[in-house]
Amino acid sequence: IISKLPNLNNSIFSTMTALANQHQAINLSQGFPDFDCPKALVDLTYSYMKKGYNQYAPMHGVQQLRERIAEMVEKQQQSVYHPDNEITVTAGATQAIFTAIACIIRPDDEVICFDPAYDCYAPAVDLCGGLVKTVSLLPNDFSINWDDVKKVFSHKTKLIIMNTPHNPTARTFSDEDMQQLIKLTRGTDIFIVSDEVYDKVVFDHKQHISVANYPELKERSFVISSFGKMFHITGWKVGYCLAPTKLTTEFRKVHQYLVFSVNTPIQYALADFLRHEDAYLSLADFFQQKRDYFADALATTPFEVLPSGGSYFLLANYDRISQKSDIEFTKELTIKHGVATIPLSVFYKNRLDKHFIRFCFAKKQETLEQAIARLTKVN
Amino acid sequence: IISKLPNLNNSIFSTMTALANQHQAINLSQGFPDFDCPKALVDLTYSYMKKGYNQYAPMHGVQQLRERIAEMVEKQQQSVYHPDNEITVTAGATQAIFTAIACIIRPDDEVICFDPAYDCYAPAVDLCGGLVKTVSLLPNDFSINWDDVKKVFSHKTKLIIMNTPHNPTARTFSDEDMQQLIKLTRGTDIFIVSDEVYDKVVFDHKQHISVANYPELKERSFVISSFGKMFHITGWKVGYCLAPTKLTTEFRKVHQYLVFSVNTPIQYALADFLRHEDAYLSLADFFQQKRDYFADALATTPFEVLPSGGSYFLLANYDRISQKSDIEFTKELTIKHGVATIPLSVFYKNRLDKHFIRFCFAKKQETLEQAIARLTKVN
Ligand SMILES: CSCCC(=O)C(=O)O
Ligand SMILES: CSCCC(=O)C(=O)O
Repeated sequence: IISKLPNLNNSIFSTMTALANQHQAINLSQGFPDFDCPKALVDLTYSYMKKGYNQYAPMHGVQQLRERIAEMVEKQQQSVYHPDNEITVTAGATQAIFTAIACIIRPDDEVICFDPAYDCYAPAVDLCGGLVKTVSLLPNDFSINWDDVKKVFSHKTKLIIMNTPHNPTARTFSDEDMQQLIKLTRGTDIFIVSDEVYDKVVFDHKQHISVANYPELKERSFVISSFGKMFHITGWKVGYCLAPTKLTTEFRKVHQYLVFSVNTPIQYALADFLRHEDAYLSLADFFQQKRDYFADALATTPFEVLPSGGSYFLLANYDRISQKSDIEFTKELTIKHGVATIPLSVFYKNRLDKHFIRFCFAKKQETLEQAIARLTKVN
Repeated sequence: IISKLPNLNNSIFSTMTALANQHQAINLSQGFPDFDCPKALVDLTYSYMKKGYNQYAPMHGVQQLRERIAEMVEKQQQSVYHPDNEITVTAGATQAIFTAIACIIRPDDEVICFDPAYDCYAPAVDLCGGLVKTVSLLPNDFSINWDDVKKVFSHKTKLIIMNTPHNPTARTFSDEDMQQLIKLTRGTDIFIVSDEVYDKVVFDHKQHISVANYPELKERSFVISSFGKMFHITGWKVGYCLAPTKLTTEFRKVHQYLVFSVNTPIQYALADFLRHEDAYLSLADFFQQKRDYFADALATTPFEVLPSGGSYFLLANYDRISQKSDIEFTKELTIKHGVATIPLSVFYKNRLDKHFIRFCFAKKQETLEQAIARLTKVN
């Protein structure tokens, strides 16, 4: 068998979580909470399972859930998507991202990705025979230089992959970025896949800025989010894709043959749970408390903390502690100091190592405190 | 947006289920049971959700579940797969089939499919740029003429898609078929994707004949099955793929970026549930009673019933009743007579209509009786 993805190794998330477990380290690597999901969600799911909602859901998702998603998106972002033709429930955001890329990209199509990036975009493009053109985020603050984006533009450019709040850098992109994106793509038929799984986790009382807020972008965009990240159920694997009718039609053609449908009782449970707005409105505050505690405490250690504008994550530099590569350093940190993190270099196409590591702070206060106690001793 | 799958319409399963619901027809179309799954499975899932097993499962599946699958496969089929490197848990069989095809097929590769076939194979091949070469099953009994298979063979042949028990024809393929397949592919590096989701539903005290039973085939095969079909939880979306290490390595590379992982609490629940062999050993008898009742009763109506050797399904011809196309006839049967079925022609590449329709008999006895009462009046 000749590999279609010859350069792929094991997922860094699997590797670091396994290493953390092996060494009983505190796991601040893979992005998932160590506290539980709302009990109401568990009980609702159980009640639908007991009532016999255990067979195939509709291919595009349970009607009630698509309606509640439409309401949530309208309330939160003032953007309107019709539940019938513009919203599809997926087996997590990863499946939605893969599906959106697969319904657009043909061999030799070019796809613009920012660098660093979450690890699932490039393999999906590769599998479709597309070419990833990376644009480096600026080294100082991970912002976008739109002139650099222009430079990789070509008549083969078919898709731009956006991600805000951005994983792994925890940056949020701005209205100015969106205006630049509009300017750049106006009059073209370039599509946008926008990974917005942390849309509810934007800090400092800022609004999440979605491509869906901009009609000129919305009409060419697949906007993807995740209930896993929203409700602390990363293991339930439910997300969704918002896209105008024409795009949704193509999205669903692939979705139907890729997974057909998504867990039925969970969809009904989520639909009921979403009736309570506060289910998601308090998320930013909830995670901001964690960010504030963890960033402030980490700043008292030799780590140099970078700002986190959104997401579960923050980056820190360890230059003052070690000159080892970030891969080596994260291993040592896990094994010797009992704290697992992710080396930033794995998110770069060329594995650029600038001695940054990524911490996930979606953890209980006591976990964060224990981690800080251990990190204080690192030197 | 230019469609990558221009010839696809809505899934016939979605269409017929929607039509059935709209007209309050008895739904014998889409393949799912109208009785509930084992209560123990619901309670086990709930207990794991309550215990907080709600975050990402390992990418390739929960260890315990892979071990139980290995035991089950060994007991049932005497074939040995190692849980670590040869078994992957998937979001249903559809995702497993898509993933297996996606990790093998490149543009211009040829894939041999039997005709008629379940509807998800060809679109997956199309999306990868492969070419489907169909081989018609023989019109009298839907058996395979292996000389016809030889005729479509070429140096571009990369994959053969097997499916036994076969959906939609309810045929099971034989040891003789497997011997022919061995002869045909010996010395080649042609892969096999074998859809065996009805492996537990083989009738008349016959053994399920899996490609995994034949070492020469096993080493080049992805064998796919489904807990949805096994435990009446089609809406939970859990299946698995068995394949030798080299193939599993490539399978997982795609799986990881296509869906990453599968519902966690359900995997733990299934692992516990599988400790009891009788969980699956009695399935063939259970469905055979339904087949026997339904086939015998239907034979007393003007429908002409074909034998069903396995699966949830049986075919019947309606020549004595109507000369309408099977598409028209199934519509009329749903709307006028209150019984929804699937026209066989949709499973043929060229939409060949020979006045056959497919009945799903995975239904409660009373549902089957009501359906028969209605079908008796059709003329
Ligand atoms: C799918 S595992 C990775 C989870 C995640 O979003 C992250 O750690 O970045
Ligand atoms: C995925 S919906 C179709 C279910 C099924 O297996 C069938 O009806 O053939």
